[in-house]
Amino acid sequence: MAKPLNIGMIGYGFMGRAHSNAYAKVSHFFPNTHTPVLKALCARNAERGKEFADKWGYESVETDWRKLLERDDIDAVDICTPNNLHKEIAIAAAQAGKMILCEKPLAMDVAEGEQMCEAVEKAGVVNMVWYNYRRVPAVTLAKQLIDEGRLGRIFHYRANFLQDWTISADVPQGGEGLWRLDAEAAGSGVTGDLLAHCIDTALWLNGGMKDVNAMTETFIKERTHQATGEVTKVTIDDACAFMCHFNNGSLGLFESTRYARGHKALYTFEINGEHASISWDLHDLGRLNYFDHKDDSLVRGWHSVHVTDTDMPYMGNWWVPGLQIGYEHSFVHQVADFLKSLETGEPAHPTFRDALETQKICDGVLKSAAERKWVDIK
Amino acid sequence: MAKPLNIGMIGYGFMGRAHSNAYAKVSHFFPNTHTPVLKALCARNAERGKEFADKWGYESVETDWRKLLERDDIDAVDICTPNNLHKEIAIAAAQAGKMILCEKPLAMDVAEGEQMCEAVEKAGVVNMVWYNYRRVPAVTLAKQLIDEGRLGRIFHYRANFLQDWTISADVPQGGEGLWRLDAEAAGSGVTGDLLAHCIDTALWLNGGMKDVNAMTETFIKERTHQATGEVTKVTIDDACAFMCHFNNGSLGLFESTRYARGHKALYTFEINGEHASISWDLHDLGRLNYFDHKDDSLVRGWHSVHVTDTDMPYMGNWWVPGLQIGYEHSFVHQVADFLKSLETGEPAHPTFRDALETQKICDGVLKSAAERKWVDIK
Amino acid sequence: MAKPLNIGMIGYGFMGRAHSNAYAKVSHFFPNTHTPVLKALCARNAERGKEFADKWGYESVETDWRKLLERDDIDAVDICTPNNLHKEIAIAAAQAGKMILCEKPLAMDVAEGEQMCEAVEKAGVVNMVWYNYRRVPAVTLAKQLIDEGRLGRIFHYRANFLQDWTISADVPQGGEGLWRLDAEAAGSGVTGDLLAHCIDTALWLNGGMKDVNAMTETFIKERTHQATGEVTKVTIDDACAFMCHFNNGSLGLFESTRYARGHKALYTFEINGEHASISWDLHDLGRLNYFDHKDDSLVRGWHSVHVTDTDMPYMGNWWVPGLQIGYEHSFVHQVADFLKSLETGEPAHPTFRDALETQKICDGVLKSAAERKWVDIK
Amino acid sequence: MAKPLNIGMIGYGFMGRAHSNAYAKVSHFFPNTHTPVLKALCARNAERGKEFADKWGYESVETDWRKLLERDDIDAVDICTPNNLHKEIAIAAAQAGKMILCEKPLAMDVAEGEQMCEAVEKAGVVNMVWYNYRRVPAVTLAKQLIDEGRLGRIFHYRANFLQDWTISADVPQGGEGLWRLDAEAAGSGVTGDLLAHCIDTALWLNGGMKDVNAMTETFIKERTHQATGEVTKVTIDDACAFMCHFNNGSLGLFESTRYARGHKALYTFEINGEHASISWDLHDLGRLNYFDHKDDSLVRGWHSVHVTDTDMPYMGNWWVPGLQIGYEHSFVHQVADFLKSLETGEPAHPTFRDALETQKICDGVLKSAAERKWVDIK
Repeated sequence: MAKPLNIGMIGYGFMGRAHSNAYAKVSHFFPNTHTPVLKALCARNAERGKEFADKWGYESVETDWRKLLERDDIDAVDICTPNNLHKEIAIAAAQAGKMILCEKPLAMDVAEGEQMCEAVEKAGVVNMVWYNYRRVPAVTLAKQLIDEGRLGRIFHYRANFLQDWTISADVPQGGEGLWRLDAEAAGSGVTGDLLAHCIDTALWLNGGMKDVNAMTETFIKERTHQATGEVTKVTIDDACAFMCHFNNGSLGLFESTRYARGHKALYTFEINGEHASISWDLHDLGRLNYFDHKDDSLVRGWHSVHVTDTDMPYMGNWWVPGLQIGYEHSFVHQVADFLKSLETGEPAHPTFRDALETQKICDGVLKSAAERKWVDIK
Repeated sequence: MAKPLNIGMIGYGFMGRAHSNAYAKVSHFFPNTHTPVLKALCARNAERGKEFADKWGYESVETDWRKLLERDDIDAVDICTPNNLHKEIAIAAAQAGKMILCEKPLAMDVAEGEQMCEAVEKAGVVNMVWYNYRRVPAVTLAKQLIDEGRLGRIFHYRANFLQDWTISADVPQGGEGLWRLDAEAAGSGVTGDLLAHCIDTALWLNGGMKDVNAMTETFIKERTHQATGEVTKVTIDDACAFMCHFNNGSLGLFESTRYARGHKALYTFEINGEHASISWDLHDLGRLNYFDHKDDSLVRGWHSVHVTDTDMPYMGNWWVPGLQIGYEHSFVHQVADFLKSLETGEPAHPTFRDALETQKICDGVLKSAAERKWVDIK
Repeated sequence: MAKPLNIGMIGYGFMGRAHSNAYAKVSHFFPNTHTPVLKALCARNAERGKEFADKWGYESVETDWRKLLERDDIDAVDICTPNNLHKEIAIAAAQAGKMILCEKPLAMDVAEGEQMCEAVEKAGVVNMVWYNYRRVPAVTLAKQLIDEGRLGRIFHYRANFLQDWTISADVPQGGEGLWRLDAEAAGSGVTGDLLAHCIDTALWLNGGMKDVNAMTETFIKERTHQATGEVTKVTIDDACAFMCHFNNGSLGLFESTRYARGHKALYTFEINGEHASISWDLHDLGRLNYFDHKDDSLVRGWHSVHVTDTDMPYMGNWWVPGLQIGYEHSFVHQVADFLKSLETGEPAHPTFRDALETQKICDGVLKSAAERKWVDIK
Repeated sequence: MAKPLNIGMIGYGFMGRAHSNAYAKVSHFFPNTHTPVLKALCARNAERGKEFADKWGYESVETDWRKLLERDDIDAVDICTPNNLHKEIAIAAAQAGKMILCEKPLAMDVAEGEQMCEAVEKAGVVNMVWYNYRRVPAVTLAKQLIDEGRLGRIFHYRANFLQDWTISADVPQGGEGLWRLDAEAAGSGVTGDLLAHCIDTALWLNGGMKDVNAMTETFIKERTHQATGEVTKVTIDDACAFMCHFNNGSLGLFESTRYARGHKALYTFEINGEHASISWDLHDLGRLNYFDHKDDSLVRGWHSVHVTDTDMPYMGNWWVPGLQIGYEHSFVHQVADFLKSLETGEPAHPTFRDALETQKICDGVLKSAAERKWVDIK
């Protein structure tokens, strides 16, 4: 029988649902020695918390996360709060000896992130950050192809994360469900929300960055704040683009925005190597595009790999070839790998320490944009 | 609190998993007055049944489906057996007053199907057949666009279901996990397995057929039978194509095969109307292609509709715009609609009676191929 | 210096322009021992003929094709008239010892086609039919890949030719520029106009057919005749679909229509072989899609081959890799190959005799549709 | 009768062919009051010049471009030489009172370009630069849609020009056919060769730029020089990326490289506006992608506009809907517009003065990359 892993979840918004679904499904498809048990949900609003807990089968509800951390029946804490609460909760959880699964980005800035890393490492608790896109099978496959050396020397890396949901000036900032538009809660706009994903993948696939050069823009300067009803200055970045040099000598170009009409969640990346290139996008997440110069010249062209065969990463655990999975499955895979890590003792990545590297780039990008100059990454 | 709907599942193969997953997920995303409870699993092999039941949380295991039907704590029976058992189980279940959810195709032939329809109608039990593709959101959207009259008079309907998994002569026929290659268990080859899906969708979207004209082929004439180890004649159709006239005057062209190299499960359809056309395929199941002649001529072209917005069918219950769902969700939707039907009293389609129409076409197609002539559908 | 090949062109409609452009361009890109000289244009309407001749540089104009055939300074006659004139002109041209380039389809029916073949063969004159799609580089590449044996045993061939220009009931039939809608001038509707192209390619790529089974439809039964202004019965087929068995054991499925909203000239074909599959379409004529099961399974997928590299058929004579050519270039290639055939003595295909095979299929298809039964091809 | 426009072409490389083809074809498809006459070809190598002239029908050959400028029978001079000769020839041609059609980029730098502008304006001669991509019909259509205001306020512009032909370290630099790899002849690498195209289109579609911030890279530092056989330092930029602010407040992101495996000539751009977005790429040059938020939400998606209908820019002069044209046609259109400008007196764009704006951006980009800082464009 699988050992129970008792989960205490803090927060119940979009990510609360995505994680709960992953915990509920994982043992049906990825047998492991551990199986998640939804022990407690923590929500400031007791009524809403109860409703969510009932729907998903959480056994109990807390309204104070400190109480949750005191409970002996909780093995792991899942932090799904706005970004400005990550640090305090994570450090306290580490001190309480809990495993920690923390939503991305790790922290509000590098200083916070370093404190968090120190705390988990000092406490020796298992930790992981929810950069889920690494575990979309097509992205995992990209990593595998790169690690096999198929691309050779890398020349270019480019990534975009394009959305369009804040184009209307009528969208308010801050408040219920809109904390991502409030710099006090989110730290930054698209940089921490979207580019952080692109950066995590890039560091994983292509290694560290040497320096960055960015520009940011806030297209709509003032919006009504939902909490107060007042029109105030928008404090987040609506769009952010940056150039960089990777340590391996390749050039990077990154862009994210919430003002790209026609794209809801179009995360894309492309890597050009000496022998082969790879591209992928989130709107067709089940396909990986691959070009190999070593193909016979008469049939050389981009392969559209429908990542559903049983020998593809994670896919042997799902249906049969040709049948697609979706966005939510990336979270299931991350939980599956987390559970496996408990068995093997090998950490599931990205750990807090891994995610701190992404934080460094984000901070560098924001600094570069503010100072209009190249910023070295240390 | 939602009312329990006690499920007794017969069979635990591929479809057993797909249905179990749907029952497990549906209440997390589609709140209804009823919620499925996995009461019992029925499997001839007790050990394997136990393993499956444990994984999915079935409360008990039966090895004789008749026993299952006798139990008072079972409200609904889900038939996931090979096709040759559908009739006997369904009729007994109807007589036992159970609701029935039956895998497709309904029966081995029209005669069986008629008996089944009579049985459920006489018993007055709720019944439904798992033609799940109707509830891929893009397909449901196609239905909605057609019903709004956007296409106008229909001229053409064409559909394919292309696979490639039996090209190798080394694939055995019959036996464990391979009953679809054995006519005694399956009734036919691609006709009942694949074309039946295409036909169900077509009848739903474009109405009934007047006549059909088909050809079938068995490319590899003999294969080793898994059960006996002997090389015997292959009795199923490897490929089947047919032309037809729909009652609305449009022309139909259908094809299915397991010998189309490069296509794992490529179900596609296209409908050409006077004003607009629609196409869809299962390999990119989250997109609907739509062409509208009424668009301004300068920007007229096929729309690639990424069916993820919250106003799309079923999508408001899942994630946020831009984030895809997959194959398995069509089953969740079907369960959700089934549960809703219990509340409204309006049947969830396709019922047995609906599925009998598909059976009539399948029988007509096989007859036409055998006799090399047009066959009228009555 | 290249030897002149004196051309006498009969007709000056759409195909007259396409051929004239090919003659004008060919020597700039495909040096041969012969070069076309636009000696004479033949048009019943002298004024229009003059205008066309001036624009394209024809040295003279004739209004009677018999006169053209009598001229000693004409080496080759290009027949671009409506189909019902092909036979008479071609036979007379053969008797006059002229080389003949005839538009497709070869004739109104097999009987005519046979007379034409006999005439050219008896006279020993060089002859060719303008099935131009063979020489779209992507299609020529398909032929090359098949001939190399890459596909292995062939299981399926399917082709469509979809247009939408006659959906409106207001389109008149017959008359100026509309002879394709008049059975007296065209012989048939989409069968001779569109399916003939699909059949020519299919016979070339996949060999002969054993039998066919077709249906045709005329969606709009009556239209105003342009010449008379009267509403009369439409005599052509608006749509035609057929199934067939190829001699190599593969199954074929063909369809053409002028009622497929959203498709202007969407000629497509797909071939599924044991090892590999190929598909192509005219709307993206510069790409060939290729799937090879022998590819490493991790990167196996459809290749989108952008047929512009210099080692692709004909492409070394044009621009540089990445830069596309268009529809008109297929005619240039056909002229280039025709000119080369004069040097080598090897006929440029399809000859009249080759095109007669396509005519046999067309006749069989129309007969099958009329009689609602399978028709053997002899 | 059309008036002759006597052309004297200087150079006979890739662009010499592209222009000659355009002159030869234009009057067959675009009737104008003027028609080009290929009067003289100028080539330093007399033998090769003769061969080219014979193939294309130039009436005479010169080996000294100064001689060509002295001839009274030349109306217009077409400069197809390496970039470092543009200035001297253009100024002399202006002084000789010739119309000038000059290949892009205009000059080696802004200083040269200004002298050239002054010369043609002082002389009052008609002048144009061959930024041909403006006249790919899909690109012209994009301009039309933007000018109609369909996109609303523009937020983002991004463009790439990706090639892969210099990845091999064995490609020599400089010399015959390779002057684009030699900074002395070309001025810069991808910046003047590829980015210049992207910039010209961007300025045309989206207006001027305020500032730029660039990085360049030379991946392979030394190559054999073809002329000398010696291994010397590579002086051009292999790759260049830059960020910018447009005057209209939108953000720009540009990249070009010759190290993007899998892309032969992939020029792409995308523009995101408040209401609508547009994208295009050169590998599928006959399609324009268009997304309009005002579309009915159920069918909202990217339109793939197959730019072949007769109401599309330039397309009414070619074939029929559905039939594509290619790369070379952009030059035909540019000549057609040039000829029309002679009739109307309205200049055909881009003029030298227009092209100087592109030169300013190129210079700013190279300066920014060298100094690693933002550079204002004046």
